[in-house]
Amino acid sequence: MPYFDAASAAPLHPVARQALLAALDEGWADPARLYREGRRARLLLDAAREAAAEAVGCRPDELVFTSSGTTAVHAGIAGALSGRRRVGRHLAHSAVEHSSVLHAAAAHEAAGGSCTEVPVDRFGAVDPAAFGAALRADTALACLQSANHEVGTEQPVAEVAALCAGAGVPLLVDAAQSLGWGPVPAGWSLLAASAHKWGGPAGVGLLAVRKGTRFSPQGPAGERESGRAPGFENLPAIVAAAASLRAVRDGAAAEAVRLRALVDRIRSVVAERVPDVEVVGDPVRRLPHLVTFSCLYVDGETLLHELDRREFSVSSGSSCTSSTLTPSHVLKAMGVLSEGNVRISLPPGTAGADVDRFLEVLPEVVAEVRERLGAPATAPPSPAPAASLVVDALGRRCPIPVIELAKVIGEVAVGATVTVLADDEAARLDIPAWCEMRGQEYVGEEPADRGSAYVVRRLS
Amino acid sequence: MPYFDAASAAPLHPVARQALLAALDEGWADPARLYREGRRARLLLDAAREAAAEAVGCRPDELVFTSSGTTAVHAGIAGALSGRRRVGRHLAHSAVEHSSVLHAAAAHEAAGGSCTEVPVDRFGAVDPAAFGAALRADTALACLQSANHEVGTEQPVAEVAALCAGAGVPLLVDAAQSLGWGPVPAGWSLLAASAHKWGGPAGVGLLAVRKGTRFSPQGPAGERESGRAPGFENLPAIVAAAASLRAVRDGAAAEAVRLRALVDRIRSVVAERVPDVEVVGDPVRRLPHLVTFSCLYVDGETLLHELDRREFSVSSGSSCTSSTLTPSHVLKAMGVLSEGNVRISLPPGTAGADVDRFLEVLPEVVAEVRERLGAPATAPPSPAPAASLVVDALGRRCPIPVIELAKVIGEVAVGATVTVLADDEAARLDIPAWCEMRGQEYVGEEPADRGSAYVVRRLS
Repeated sequence: MPYFDAASAAPLHPVARQALLAALDEGWADPARLYREGRRARLLLDAAREAAAEAVGCRPDELVFTSSGTTAVHAGIAGALSGRRRVGRHLAHSAVEHSSVLHAAAAHEAAGGSCTEVPVDRFGAVDPAAFGAALRADTALACLQSANHEVGTEQPVAEVAALCAGAGVPLLVDAAQSLGWGPVPAGWSLLAASAHKWGGPAGVGLLAVRKGTRFSPQGPAGERESGRAPGFENLPAIVAAAASLRAVRDGAAAEAVRLRALVDRIRSVVAERVPDVEVVGDPVRRLPHLVTFSCLYVDGETLLHELDRREFSVSSGSSCTSSTLTPSHVLKAMGVLSEGNVRISLPPGTAGADVDRFLEVLPEVVAEVRERLGAPATAPPSPAPAASLVVDALGRRCPIPVIELAKVIGEVAVGATVTVLADDEAARLDIPAWCEMRGQEYVGEEPADRGSAYVVRRLS
Repeated sequence: MPYFDAASAAPLHPVARQALLAALDEGWADPARLYREGRRARLLLDAAREAAAEAVGCRPDELVFTSSGTTAVHAGIAGALSGRRRVGRHLAHSAVEHSSVLHAAAAHEAAGGSCTEVPVDRFGAVDPAAFGAALRADTALACLQSANHEVGTEQPVAEVAALCAGAGVPLLVDAAQSLGWGPVPAGWSLLAASAHKWGGPAGVGLLAVRKGTRFSPQGPAGERESGRAPGFENLPAIVAAAASLRAVRDGAAAEAVRLRALVDRIRSVVAERVPDVEVVGDPVRRLPHLVTFSCLYVDGETLLHELDRREFSVSSGSSCTSSTLTPSHVLKAMGVLSEGNVRISLPPGTAGADVDRFLEVLPEVVAEVRERLGAPATAPPSPAPAASLVVDALGRRCPIPVIELAKVIGEVAVGATVTVLADDEAARLDIPAWCEMRGQEYVGEEPADRGSAYVVRRLS
């Protein structure tokens, strides 16, 4: 059962398991107590903090353990914003941050703050100059992920950090996806991460705040972790998290080379064997283990189910696989196709043979799903005399509106338009993406009685 | 090495350990994912929620798992206050709540809300009528613990719940100390608890919110646990927490009887064998496993160290064992002696022989510490002709000011006064408590150039 969703959660690393078991026996007591069980717990906590700080590249007294990566991000953003509220209440962040950052930004806006979302290019990366331009005199904090969790693109952290330093703005780096692979480039003021992404247990995040960064913890006061993370320390899990971070780092360089080659193979073979596919994310500046692609005319949820039936566990940013029925905000910000989206993130140790088998299975599965949905053949549309057409896809979910568009584009004359009426949120992203992939012109979106009217001009 | 501090943290229950190990293998994946590892995790999460809800006495959809008891309390108070902000911004709570409640109340006050602290009697219990009187037209929420964490006294939850219901005010019950022993009496609107208090792992709390209770989660939006607990679910620990709650409950009735007898023995033998001791907390309406006493003329930190040297792990609410150098707010609210304070909380399975050995060792240790500090003999003061006296204990820490007072009380005439100058925070609590224990009159506190002047009149 190949599991290709390490970016969601990785199975517990053997070193983490071993450390957890030992710490359950030795580290269950309150590290704030004076008796021997408490002192033993304190020693374990101190050692874990030192190990984690070394891996992060900070001082132990700059690092606290939180209950998750999400709470680390929330606490870091709230504390940094409050610490600099005299400077202003502006927050700058990329458009493709993890939802924990976006939710914290939304809460900040709801409380009267202001935010600037820095756009990304088609690879998912911010332009450092654009990020720099978003920094204002009243910017209290900037947030940039080290690498994107959905498409794997690495962000230009060092360049952005230099611009932030020049502007006197602290930079919070969400390093959740990359910390297991190596330290974040210098220049950050705050750093957040999550242990279960690197093979540690769930229930542990970390937040590092550089000395000198103004920081004012929010929420009720806390007696533990320098007042930055409320509640009794989850010590056995913290010990396991620190031990596994050290262990995965030891093997990271070699494993990165191996997984990078497997991902390169996926990138090229998928593009080769699956027609009408868009492989997204930066092909070079990216996480070693992660690749994402979208398949035209495919329903993401069905695709995931069919892959699951064949024992491949992958995730998707398609709208039909989200509870909100909207496509991933990352794919949206990149302007790439979201239908039939598949994210592969290989856990360390992934066998090449499993990847090969996936690459054999995938084209069949995609073809099957397309056939079931009545997707058009991929041959280019033939010349045809018809005038402009309107396609009614109201009430139909992704990928049907795009399939309907593709079916009729050959029926209108070159230069004429097809207007697609649709009320599925994904159409707004996927119709322009289809035009880009197919070499047709996306004219624009017009309001309609129900949903929207998306106008496409046939060019070829 | 008898460990008598179960109220801080209990060693992992064997059932919890077993469940944790199994769930580390089966429940590491994201329960929100559609593939088999995710579905398996979801099943485990649902089963854990059902088991915990049954133990709590609520519906599974009323209960969420948080990252600790503290975060459950914080989230519960913030959400309930916000849900009823149109009613008003008043919060009523007892004076002896856990620090997580008091910190949330302080944060509420700092944000412009108002709080009423309901006092407790000398046993540490609130008077239901007094609690009822604290409820106002603008009271958004009331908080009452099920039982006190420092002295074991059970609160009149059912009576207070009835008064709250009458006033239309939701009641949050912090059940951290009692949930392992049995369900909380009906009538609560919100309930918070902490798994590591019942032998579950650290890193798991639970928050139940009855349907119909107005509740508006605060902080950044979350996608998990009904938006009431941010971050990836700590699933293996949640599974272990639920399994161990069920397991400890199965044996709770029998074990409560056994531990109650051991605690009764401690209560009577300590009072018998240790001179000048005050056993605090309700002798009947109390947790089965917890007892607290304070020893006159004893330095709490030294006492703990000496007990630790003899392999007994206990905790203390004395000022000298806290980082803030102030005595426990619970002892303060009760108006009982804080010096030489010892809290014993027996984990399930505690051997009677260990308790017996403790009762042999304790009197020796107390006598030793007193001798080292030059504490006065316990004989009642003899008549003496001297006029009133002033004792300068400025700059001296607990228990020295009380020792100095006790040394000279016999030197003044009956009806005359001793004035103790002291700047140690504990004196404010311990000098009146000493008067109560010794049958002398505490006249009052007067301002002084440095610290305070505590005036005591000799009565006998």
